[in-house]
Amino acid sequence: MLVTKFAIPEIIFGKGSTKHLAQCARRLGARRVLLVSDDGLERAGWVSMIKGLLEEDLLDCVYFNNVDSNPRDHQVHEGAALYREAQADVIIGLGGGSPIDAAKGIATIVGNGGQIRDYEGANKIMRPLPPMIFIPSTAGSGSDMSQYSIITDVERQVKMSIISRSLVPNLSIIDPTMLTTKTPELIIASAVDALAHAVESYVSKAASPFTEHQALLSIRLILDNINEAVETRSLHALEQLSIASTAAGMSFSNAGLGIGHSLAHSIGGRYDVLHGLVHPILLPVVMRFNLPASEKKMACIGKEVLGPRICSERCLGEKGIDALHEMFVRLGVTTRLRDILPTNSDMEAICRMAERDTCTITNPRQASWQDLLRICEEAW
Amino acid sequence: MLVTKFAIPEIIFGKGSTKHLAQCARRLGARRVLLVSDDGLERAGWVSMIKGLLEEDLLDCVYFNNVDSNPRDHQVHEGAALYREAQADVIIGLGGGSPIDAAKGIATIVGNGGQIRDYEGANKIMRPLPPMIFIPSTAGSGSDMSQYSIITDVERQVKMSIISRSLVPNLSIIDPTMLTTKTPELIIASAVDALAHAVESYVSKAASPFTEHQALLSIRLILDNINEAVETRSLHALEQLSIASTAAGMSFSNAGLGIGHSLAHSIGGRYDVLHGLVHPILLPVVMRFNLPASEKKMACIGKEVLGPRICSERCLGEKGIDALHEMFVRLGVTTRLRDILPTNSDMEAICRMAERDTCTITNPRQASWQDLLRICEEAW
Repeated sequence: MLVTKFAIPEIIFGKGSTKHLAQCARRLGARRVLLVSDDGLERAGWVSMIKGLLEEDLLDCVYFNNVDSNPRDHQVHEGAALYREAQADVIIGLGGGSPIDAAKGIATIVGNGGQIRDYEGANKIMRPLPPMIFIPSTAGSGSDMSQYSIITDVERQVKMSIISRSLVPNLSIIDPTMLTTKTPELIIASAVDALAHAVESYVSKAASPFTEHQALLSIRLILDNINEAVETRSLHALEQLSIASTAAGMSFSNAGLGIGHSLAHSIGGRYDVLHGLVHPILLPVVMRFNLPASEKKMACIGKEVLGPRICSERCLGEKGIDALHEMFVRLGVTTRLRDILPTNSDMEAICRMAERDTCTITNPRQASWQDLLRICEEAW
Repeated sequence: MLVTKFAIPEIIFGKGSTKHLAQCARRLGARRVLLVSDDGLERAGWVSMIKGLLEEDLLDCVYFNNVDSNPRDHQVHEGAALYREAQADVIIGLGGGSPIDAAKGIATIVGNGGQIRDYEGANKIMRPLPPMIFIPSTAGSGSDMSQYSIITDVERQVKMSIISRSLVPNLSIIDPTMLTTKTPELIIASAVDALAHAVESYVSKAASPFTEHQALLSIRLILDNINEAVETRSLHALEQLSIASTAAGMSFSNAGLGIGHSLAHSIGGRYDVLHGLVHPILLPVVMRFNLPASEKKMACIGKEVLGPRICSERCLGEKGIDALHEMFVRLGVTTRLRDILPTNSDMEAICRMAERDTCTITNPRQASWQDLLRICEEAW
């Protein structure tokens, strides 16, 4: 094994863990925090709950909510201007991947200046960021764990991957009760996003013993709990999905992802579709493409999906992929690209862009834009 | 599940990972580091290797090596005085648990003043510590991962447990090639220490989904690799033991330990025996005592030791404990207390002290000093 790195934030996990927020912010030196969230979290009552917790502890709070479901570059710059104007000292991100990615972008600009596109790619952030605390409201994005921030460059219609150790927050506070106000559709989309993180990072070229068992744990927990979480919305099942999402976040943040995410970024940059809708469509096709390069690991995934079987590794891998696809159909999510994209006329441009995405580097099987195009055609 | 916390350092792992040391120290603001190590590491050539790496990068290095195998309070104070006198800015601990625990003690005094005994117990460290980088030279103590520092109070003949989030270093650099200069006896003692960390934290009252699978992973890796590591000293097997020790460290640091470690601390405070010698003696007896309170988990351990069996949980747990004991016998380590202690005349005092040890709180079964005495009698 070559030298490998593993970095995760400090984690506070469990029902009611948000009540530790103000104390944690103080420990990081907070007097006035910038809280980044969005309309959905406001409507569900979580924003006022968090504001209340900060007020109770006499912490000033400046609020920023101009964040789209795929956060834009200009929104990041607007948030950074607000942080500076308010002389805030700690950034709190509350939400799914979008507000948290926006909060990371804001922290990057606050600490390093310039434009957010200056930091596209890996390891471009040189100066320290202000302290960050993230509170994920979905069990999926893993952004509260990860070294990634995905920001849309509006002019170029690109979802930029910004990847840096500095984007791992000081603290992630994960409270599964947040999930109780989510629709079943969002719970499914988030869980499938986490599943894609786990699968892609498990077979990644940069996977390590520190990430592999997190990825397998995540796959197991999602398969064991997704039905109960959607059907009964039991807090136990939601809690298990939160653990799964956290484990998948630890894995992909340190092991990287693959071409499923390259395509998701490229498609999302052009069409602003919800990230979680893309994975049930692409994941099985991408897994089939990757199977020849990672038969052993795909067989391990197959074993998690199906239990032990007496058949070859390749066969177990194939049957596992089929079973995942069937699970997506059963969950009622769309499994064809044509259902979420207006046209297939620009698939070549999408695939040429995906070929250059950072996630393509760690994919276990070399993939040209022509390979990606065949994957998209199969998924159309 | 109640609210649970999980904190680990950033990790750089792998053969040759030490070459990143100087760069990492610089990232933490180092200009002059205090390097804490001991005679054994000097003889093996690792101290001069590390000094060379720092010099190459033009980093000043002040060296402190007055550390016994159970580090003493006055040694910590001496190291802290040297740090201040030299105006050092980062502490590097190189070694097994002893130099690293001493380095943590030094950092505590440097950041907080007073005497090291002022910080005995949990969460007594209030002010920040200087940046710390640890390089473990054994696959066992887990001190490079953990919130624990064990320092002997010479006057009271007590091994004090100092437990604080602040003792988790900024960075742990784990290079399995360090293990190649260790004797088979030390490899075994360290691996059994890691195994005891994994087992005790797995059944701990404070175990969480974030620690449990780390503990099981650690148990599996130790059982799979200890023979090969001792017999062939293959770098692959040593690397697997390093991963196991790291995983066990993540687990016990966040889940706590049990009465095996309470007794080990109490015995070690009085008799200065090597920590790693105590566990093969105590672990099976302690596991038998804990079995009624954690049958399900002991059965999971039994499954790791023996593979799946068709028998009751209790039976699987019992057979697993027996198999562990047999493994210790096969490895040629002593399994009787009488072989390492000069007398059993003061066992009552040892057990009364162990009852008050912090590790007793997280033990899965309530244990009085009389219970501990029966355990010691059984192990005598």
